[in-house]
Amino acid sequence: MSFRRGRSTVFTENPVSVTSFSAVGGKKEGEGPYASCFDYLDSDGYFGQKSFELAESAMQGLALQNALEKRGIEPKDISVILGGDLLDQCIGTSFGIKDFEIPFLGIYGACSTVSEGLAIASVLADSGAADIAAVITSSHFCTAERQYRFPLEYGGQRTPTSQWTATASGALTVERRDAPPYIRAVCFGSVVDKGVTDANNMGAAMAPAAYATLSGFFKDTSMRPDDFDAIVTGDLANAGSRLLTDLAGRDGLDISKKHLDCGRMIYDQNTQDVHAGGSGCGCAASMLAGYFLPEIREGRLKNILFAATGALLSPTSSQQGMSIPGISHLVWISNEKGD
Amino acid sequence: MSFRRGRSTVFTENPVSVTSFSAVGGKKEGEGPYASCFDYLDSDGYFGQKSFELAESAMQGLALQNALEKRGIEPKDISVILGGDLLDQCIGTSFGIKDFEIPFLGIYGACSTVSEGLAIASVLADSGAADIAAVITSSHFCTAERQYRFPLEYGGQRTPTSQWTATASGALTVERRDAPPYIRAVCFGSVVDKGVTDANNMGAAMAPAAYATLSGFFKDTSMRPDDFDAIVTGDLANAGSRLLTDLAGRDGLDISKKHLDCGRMIYDQNTQDVHAGGSGCGCAASMLAGYFLPEIREGRLKNILFAATGALLSPTSSQQGMSIPGISHLVWISNEKGD
Repeated sequence: MSFRRGRSTVFTENPVSVTSFSAVGGKKEGEGPYASCFDYLDSDGYFGQKSFELAESAMQGLALQNALEKRGIEPKDISVILGGDLLDQCIGTSFGIKDFEIPFLGIYGACSTVSEGLAIASVLADSGAADIAAVITSSHFCTAERQYRFPLEYGGQRTPTSQWTATASGALTVERRDAPPYIRAVCFGSVVDKGVTDANNMGAAMAPAAYATLSGFFKDTSMRPDDFDAIVTGDLANAGSRLLTDLAGRDGLDISKKHLDCGRMIYDQNTQDVHAGGSGCGCAASMLAGYFLPEIREGRLKNILFAATGALLSPTSSQQGMSIPGISHLVWISNEKGD
Repeated sequence: MSFRRGRSTVFTENPVSVTSFSAVGGKKEGEGPYASCFDYLDSDGYFGQKSFELAESAMQGLALQNALEKRGIEPKDISVILGGDLLDQCIGTSFGIKDFEIPFLGIYGACSTVSEGLAIASVLADSGAADIAAVITSSHFCTAERQYRFPLEYGGQRTPTSQWTATASGALTVERRDAPPYIRAVCFGSVVDKGVTDANNMGAAMAPAAYATLSGFFKDTSMRPDDFDAIVTGDLANAGSRLLTDLAGRDGLDISKKHLDCGRMIYDQNTQDVHAGGSGCGCAASMLAGYFLPEIREGRLKNILFAATGALLSPTSSQQGMSIPGISHLVWISNEKGD
C-alpha cells in the first residue's frame, strides 16, 4: 500500500530498499574521477561484440548479472524488470535482457529512465505486486552519437553546450526489506516544454522539468532543500545546472549548496574534453548505482533527492523544427526508515 | 494492495475499474467493420496538422480529451498517465500529452503498449499510488510506414504476411470503483525470441510471446480457456493467429473457439486489402477502448483475457540481421467483481 500526497508524490508504506546495485562503464568513464565506482570497465567499448548496439545490450546484461550476483539471486527470483534506453524502439534493453527470461516492462523516459524505473519499481515492491523488482538502463556514446547526430567517422565540431553521452549502464534491485538505502517517496514528473529547440543544449531543455518536479515535491511534502544532504539531477551538465539553480532561486528556493549533477561529476571537465558534461541514461544510472547508493547505504549521505532528467526529442522531431520537451522523475532515497 | 500468484500474475485486491475509454481512428478504420466503435474518425489522417507525426500526437490528445470528458474530469484529476507509441523516442506520446500537464510515465512495449499500460495503471490504482491513472497509445500508418519501411511515395509491393498499421488511438482511465469493467488480474510478459528475422511477418515473431504469457497465466491461476468468453490478442493477424492456436494446441490447450485477434477484426479482409490484417499500438488499443470494454461493461461479454502483443525490433536491429523479440502483457477484464 502506498499513499499519495499532493499532485504527484507517492510515499512508500513499507520499508522499501534498494538491495543491490551495479554500475558498468566504458574506457572514458574509467578515466574519470569516479572510475573506482564501476564494477567493470570495458577497454574498447565493444564489450566483446561486433556492433556498438550489441555492445550496449551486452553492457546491460553484465550490469544486471552483477546486480543479481551481489544480491545472491537468480533471474527467476526477480518478479519484474523495468528498463529502457535511448536507442530507437529501446533495442538496447530488449536485446540486453531477453535471455534472462524475466517479466519485462519497457519504459521510456530518455535520460530520466533510471529514476522512472526506480519510482515504478518502488511502488510495485511496496504494493506487493513484485517481490523483487529490478531496474536497468544504459547509454553508449557510439550508438547514441550515430543515431542522434552524425556518423562516428564524421568528427564534427561540438558546441560548448553539447554533452558527452556516457557509455555506462546501471542495474538495481528493489524490494521490501529493512535495510538502507530506503526509498521513502517518489514523484512522477510531467512533461515540460519551454520552447528550447537547440538539440545541442539539452541541459536548457531539461532544467525547467527538473525544477517543476523538485518544486512539486517540496510543495507536496512541505519539505525544504535543507532537509537533504544532496539534490541530485541526472545530466543537466554545466548550462542546465546553472539554469536550474537560477530558476529555483527566483522562487526563493536556494538549492545552490545542495545541488549535484551526475553529468558534471562523471568526467573530469578539465582534462576529458566533454564540453558541458556527461549525458545519457547510463550517466545518471551508473552514478546512482556506483556512487550515491553505496554512500547512502554506508551512512555517509543520509537523505538525497535523486531526479534524473530526460529530453524527449527525436531526430525526426528536431528535423521538423519542434521544441524539446523535458521530463524529470524524482526519488527520495534515505539511510533512515520512514515512520 | 495487490497480491502475486505464480511467476508473473498479479491480482487486484480492490475493485479496480476502467471508468472511461475512447477510440479515435482514421479513414481506413472508418471503412472497417468496427467503424461505429470509434468516437471520432478523421477524414484524411492529418487531424488538422501539417505533418503525420504531429497528426499522431493530435490523435492522442483527442482520444485523451474524449476519455476525460466522458468521465467528467479535468487533466488535473488524473494522478498519472502511462503512454507510448511506435515512433522513435515515443514522440507521438510526448508531444501528444504535454499540454495536459499530467504526471507522465513513458512506456515502450511496441504494439503491446496498451496492455502494458493498463496492467501498470491497474496496480497503481489498486495500491493507492494513483487515484485515477490514465493510459494512452497510438499508431499511424503514415508515420510507421516511413519510419520502419519505405517512403510513403515508394509504393513497394507488400508480402502476404505483412500487416497494415492502424491509424488509431485508444485512451482509458483506471481507478478504484465498484462498477464494471473490472481489472481482476494482470500478467507481465517476458521477452520471447524464437529467431524469426522476417520483419514482414511480425505475427510469427509475436505469437510465441502471446502463448508464453497466456500459458503462464493459466499455470499461475489454474484457470482454463473455458473460463473466458474470449481470449483476445493484439495484432497477430492471420499468420500469427494460426501459430498461436497451433502452439497452444500442441500443449493440449484448446483456445481455437475463444481466440479473437484485433488485427484480424479491425479491417474487412475481403475488401480492404490489408494482407494479413491490422497492426500497430492503436489497433489493439482502439478495439479495446471502442469495442471490448463497452461489451464487458454492458455484460454482453463477462470475462476476457486481453493480451496485446509487441514486436521489439527496430530498423537498426533488422538491418544488423538480428531476430525479432516479441512480448505480450495480459489483463483479465471482467463484468464481475472479484471475491
